[in-house]
Amino acid sequence: MNIEQIIEKKRDGYELNREEIHYFIKGYVANEIPDYQASALLMAIYIRGMNKKEIGILTDEMRISGEVWDLSSIPGLKLDKHSTGGVGDKVSLVLGPMVASCGGKLAKMSGRGLGHTGGTLDKLESIPGFDIYENYEEFKNQINTVGMAIIGQDSEIDPADKKLYALRDVTATVSSIPLIASSIMSKKLASGADCILLDVKYGSGAFMKTIDDAKKLAQTMVDIGKELNKDVRAEITDMDQPLGLAVGNNLEVKEVINTLKGNGPKDLIELCLSSGSIMLQQAKIFDNEMDARRALTENINNGKAFEKFKEFVKAQKGDVSYIEYPEKFPVAKNIIKIYSLNSGFVTKINALAIGKASMELGGGREKLEDIIDMSAGIVLNKKIGDPISNGELLATLYTNKEDFKKIENDVLNAFRIEEKFDKNLISKKILID
Amino acid sequence: MNIEQIIEKKRDGYELNREEIHYFIKGYVANEIPDYQASALLMAIYIRGMNKKEIGILTDEMRISGEVWDLSSIPGLKLDKHSTGGVGDKVSLVLGPMVASCGGKLAKMSGRGLGHTGGTLDKLESIPGFDIYENYEEFKNQINTVGMAIIGQDSEIDPADKKLYALRDVTATVSSIPLIASSIMSKKLASGADCILLDVKYGSGAFMKTIDDAKKLAQTMVDIGKELNKDVRAEITDMDQPLGLAVGNNLEVKEVINTLKGNGPKDLIELCLSSGSIMLQQAKIFDNEMDARRALTENINNGKAFEKFKEFVKAQKGDVSYIEYPEKFPVAKNIIKIYSLNSGFVTKINALAIGKASMELGGGREKLEDIIDMSAGIVLNKKIGDPISNGELLATLYTNKEDFKKIENDVLNAFRIEEKFDKNLISKKILID
Repeated sequence: MNIEQIIEKKRDGYELNREEIHYFIKGYVANEIPDYQASALLMAIYIRGMNKKEIGILTDEMRISGEVWDLSSIPGLKLDKHSTGGVGDKVSLVLGPMVASCGGKLAKMSGRGLGHTGGTLDKLESIPGFDIYENYEEFKNQINTVGMAIIGQDSEIDPADKKLYALRDVTATVSSIPLIASSIMSKKLASGADCILLDVKYGSGAFMKTIDDAKKLAQTMVDIGKELNKDVRAEITDMDQPLGLAVGNNLEVKEVINTLKGNGPKDLIELCLSSGSIMLQQAKIFDNEMDARRALTENINNGKAFEKFKEFVKAQKGDVSYIEYPEKFPVAKNIIKIYSLNSGFVTKINALAIGKASMELGGGREKLEDIIDMSAGIVLNKKIGDPISNGELLATLYTNKEDFKKIENDVLNAFRIEEKFDKNLISKKILID
Repeated sequence: MNIEQIIEKKRDGYELNREEIHYFIKGYVANEIPDYQASALLMAIYIRGMNKKEIGILTDEMRISGEVWDLSSIPGLKLDKHSTGGVGDKVSLVLGPMVASCGGKLAKMSGRGLGHTGGTLDKLESIPGFDIYENYEEFKNQINTVGMAIIGQDSEIDPADKKLYALRDVTATVSSIPLIASSIMSKKLASGADCILLDVKYGSGAFMKTIDDAKKLAQTMVDIGKELNKDVRAEITDMDQPLGLAVGNNLEVKEVINTLKGNGPKDLIELCLSSGSIMLQQAKIFDNEMDARRALTENINNGKAFEKFKEFVKAQKGDVSYIEYPEKFPVAKNIIKIYSLNSGFVTKINALAIGKASMELGGGREKLEDIIDMSAGIVLNKKIGDPISNGELLATLYTNKEDFKKIENDVLNAFRIEEKFDKNLISKKILID
């Protein structure tokens, strides 16, 4: 076997077998196969595609390319949750404590934000003292005692994905469903959860622009679960507007606190209830949606979910006083209010534009090495469907930068205001399992 | 503009424009675009293809990627001839003197052999003293005075092709018609000829295995000529059996001498007359095939073509006494005769097997750094269509190696002998112009 033959086979549209995929992943991770051969194969995969079986094998070979975590010593089914990323997506921080307070065990490995999308790790680090760099044993221990832990991606996990992702990024081979699905799933599976819930987002602020592409990606990942005997389910949700009202790190943590106290934005709490009820069913704690939803709602109302959040923050060395007194979080020097120039209804909010504006205000990274201003970002005062009058407040910007004229304008233009609003246009969630 | 966008465009099947192709070739030659991006683009080109216009631009940008020779100071139209390579293909050495003796000006840059195919430079170097490394000024001067010169590929010519070829070789992107055509044509065009005749071979011993692929490649190269305003014509000829009788370097030079003296194998002399008459028409020395053929035949019969060959060898410092007294060429120590085990007609001779056997006898290179034994090779005693009796001589092997048992067997098996032979199976030549 040699790599040229493997490239040739995929180039001509044939199926690769386990031996061939193993040869490629092993050789590439060991630096025996150079980037220029890997990129030719990636392009062939991009154009020719892969069938279910090949994607399952590719995911599995990536999964075992480095360290594989074993969480079996923790009693019960371990849950993981992954969102394909969006603007204002703080779901994990609300959902985790909700599910853990009902007896679920959440074992989550998380990433950082880049470009217009935020990252769960960055949001957590806006809490002074919060430590995401605990080791694997601490991680396991915390899942057992607290019921949830969130850890940064370990450098020993899935080295194949790290190398392939960096190469795909510069060879126009990112947006391939087999490559995206295997990248997400191999990491998830290597970190040891029994059940995975995926939130595949579509729309202007998401990686998948159309609902059809989101469905394909979701179905592909659920199929990987079937190939590899894991309980994988996927929700498809829209990212046509930011999720909730806050975009930006400590602004979002404050929204998380409000939501866990029962005062969250409707779309955020609804998504958390929906995702949470699926996860509790995956964990076999409940056998139907209604009971699961009831338990989750109860734990918001009785404060148990909020107490779980504090327990989690404390376990990862975060200063809990900030959770108890959110007014302690630093507030940006410049607070700029954006007013509507028209009357009618908000019919669109360009999530991509809002995400980019938040990044430009200092709340995100343009390049990996950029440093984030934890207090910068945007709070929306209106969402799609809301009525609005000329001169009424649309959004509030927070920044320590002084040059924000262009950003003000971008945020204003991100809102579309029309005379009428058709409620049927509000997109529905889809579940794939 | 950036290279990712260019890769993306071709990945999605769109046409690349001149700016994009220029950006790629210039950046790649300057080592600003790394191999891993170039190979992703090559794979996208391999799978998505290129239209006539793109192939013309790619060829032109490769052509100007290094030194471009200007032969305009030499009076008359300068001719070049290229064969896609085969087994026993010594046409250039016969055709060159024939055409030059009729007033044609042949300016040929040539390559070395690899694997089962021989190279014109290697054949010439079997003549003691022959120098293929003359410089460009000497090359021009000799075309003017002698009417023909053959030079090794200059390292300053077409660096894009050198880099791309090496990369294609290890990324399964060799057998792409746009890439093959641009590789051949960019070198040819950079070396300054006005008219190019291509001999595109198909069959077991050729790079193109089917006549359809050969037609496509030929048409693509003729189209490049049209895009770039050059007179490019192509013959499509079969390589289902070796050309002529001799395979191996000094064995082939001896056959060249015999052919120029009027005693050549029928298929070789016919191909030289056919190609030569096209070239003399391209050079506008004759305006019809019949007159051109008559002149070429005359110069074989009156010895002018043979004299021209001696003049050419002398101009490139070769020892002409070897041309006058071919018995001076070293003869291999072991001469092995292969006899037929059946009676009937020769219906097939596997050119690939003969080429490989000749290489294994010492007459070719398996790897670029191998040293050739100039006296090693094979002389066929029968060709397709010849009647043969049990025990009659089929072929003669020449080698200085001692272990040739397997090769004897391979050569015997390269011949297929059947009771009947259908003359209609002899393939025809096709001309594309």
